[in-house]
Amino acid sequence: MKSKKVTFADIASYTGFSKTTISRYFNNPDSLTLENQQKIADALVKLDYKENKVGRILASGKTEFVGIIIPNLYMHYYSEMLNQILATYETYGYKFLVFAGNAKADIERKYIEELLAYNIEGMIVLSPTIPSKELASYNVPIVGIEREDQYISSVNTDNYMGGVQAASLLRKSSCDILIHVNGKIQDTSPAFGRIRGFVDICEEYQLPYELILTDIGNTFDENRAGILQLEERLEKKYPDKKKGIFMPNDTHANVLLNILFQKYGKLPDTYQIIGFDNSPISREAVIPTSTVGQQISVIANEAMKLLSAQMEERKKRRPEPLKEPIHKVIAPILIRRDTTA
Amino acid sequence: MKSKKVTFADIASYTGFSKTTISRYFNNPDSLTLENQQKIADALVKLDYKENKVGRILASGKTEFVGIIIPNLYMHYYSEMLNQILATYETYGYKFLVFAGNAKADIERKYIEELLAYNIEGMIVLSPTIPSKELASYNVPIVGIEREDQYISSVNTDNYMGGVQAASLLRKSSCDILIHVNGKIQDTSPAFGRIRGFVDICEEYQLPYELILTDIGNTFDENRAGILQLEERLEKKYPDKKKGIFMPNDTHANVLLNILFQKYGKLPDTYQIIGFDNSPISREAVIPTSTVGQQISVIANEAMKLLSAQMEERKKRRPEPLKEPIHKVIAPILIRRDTTA
Repeated sequence: MKSKKVTFADIASYTGFSKTTISRYFNNPDSLTLENQQKIADALVKLDYKENKVGRILASGKTEFVGIIIPNLYMHYYSEMLNQILATYETYGYKFLVFAGNAKADIERKYIEELLAYNIEGMIVLSPTIPSKELASYNVPIVGIEREDQYISSVNTDNYMGGVQAASLLRKSSCDILIHVNGKIQDTSPAFGRIRGFVDICEEYQLPYELILTDIGNTFDENRAGILQLEERLEKKYPDKKKGIFMPNDTHANVLLNILFQKYGKLPDTYQIIGFDNSPISREAVIPTSTVGQQISVIANEAMKLLSAQMEERKKRRPEPLKEPIHKVIAPILIRRDTTA
Repeated sequence: MKSKKVTFADIASYTGFSKTTISRYFNNPDSLTLENQQKIADALVKLDYKENKVGRILASGKTEFVGIIIPNLYMHYYSEMLNQILATYETYGYKFLVFAGNAKADIERKYIEELLAYNIEGMIVLSPTIPSKELASYNVPIVGIEREDQYISSVNTDNYMGGVQAASLLRKSSCDILIHVNGKIQDTSPAFGRIRGFVDICEEYQLPYELILTDIGNTFDENRAGILQLEERLEKKYPDKKKGIFMPNDTHANVLLNILFQKYGKLPDTYQIIGFDNSPISREAVIPTSTVGQQISVIANEAMKLLSAQMEERKKRRPEPLKEPIHKVIAPILIRRDTTA
């Protein structure tokens, strides 16, 4: 029982205005007199006109669509960030096209190009797969989160401060050896700051430390295998020492914690663990895990604020594009729970 | 450095064809002679025409957009289901507009109405907030997953079989008392089948059992408080009995498991736990948790298959809408891990 849609032509013929005038009513109503606005508004009611947004998109170029490109939904940090970005719908009204790249660069590129063909207004990119230089060339507002961001605006946690906080906490817990586990991170990635902050504190206080920079995979099975190996190596190398371990994120900290619990029935006194992110798993773990908290909801909201300002600018008659990308840095918050003294 | 977009008018004036002919080239090319198709194709190359999908949407009504309405991203089952649905992009090419309703019915309704105004082609609805009768009235292809589905097509796990599997496993573990925890579920919800399956096995084998049907909230804090209370109550009521507990999902099973570990340093012999879903947390828990596994990837793919068939039908010249909603049922798979004997 589809009722036929009322078109601009129908409204024009009913009111006696031209189709151009009807279009102006929808897209620039102030260019009409109040009296004429009222006539058209009345006609819409009479004709039971239902707005067809696709028509408006074509007329105005405003789709209200924003793309979100995340690396995966396995890492709890990404699903929580997605959650917080989606929640901005209530504030901004943008609707989100979501894609999980899973490190397949070709498919991610194809997806983004499709989104652009649909005239999306902007993108939030968490996936590190496509270089920021290439993203910038798409010529659409983009905000990156926790990824290489030389050519695009971004919102990141102050990772250097995070590394400082983690090392300082482990120092106060009087660990004999401080260990930071992380991936093979490019020095252009925000996460690289964590390594610098961690090392700076260790060197400043002349604390023994080891960096273990290795790829421990993107799936649970890969993570578990890699972290099991890591734990055996540490056990062999530092058997009686008090080991303070700064893991790259809460998901991986949880895997290590479980391996230790399965072996010892508790977190042994020779281990201190601190994660990164304050994602939900840090509280859902067998014992609540200390973590360098990213303010995920603040980051999500700042990213949308930055993006929406750029998208609004584009709608002006003479938009002034950003001269330089804007990089916002959000302070991390150290959260002490039960895996550190 | 925006280059001006080439329009149908430009192509028309370059080739000498009418705009209608150009439009036919894009939407019904076989209505033109091969020679004329070639002329237009050559012109597109010359003019460096870039397809504008919004224009095509308006011409063809095909947006390639599908809405996904999930209740939240806190429950690991939903984020994994979302993950699997997004992954179907590679197979079907549909792009997903994602919304997390968080039980706010008004906002969910507004969001869905906006999506419809954008001519999305279909929806996958996991959120139980809006009754299927209302969803069906939107007159757009919809597939529900694990929600009330009287008036819409759906893909669900065979919940009754899941309840049977859980009770049977706990029976074999020679528990003294079988307990099923679940929410206050409507009997129209697929999850209600679990309760029936569980009770039928208990009665068939004359096993003592208790149903605890109570709302334990949608956030970690609410869950933890509720399950802590629950554990204290069971401890008091059945102190020395071997308790076989069938939790409503793996997220809640994990909370119970952690409470017991924090109290006893292990899973005591007087407890057997089985979850539901086989979502990632069941493996990421302190000890791998037994669970009635939903085949999440199978469900996601079946849902897209069902939806895409309905969306394709709509594009035919004389579409034949479904006479009755189709309900697909997917078998659960019992996964025995370390929380049951």
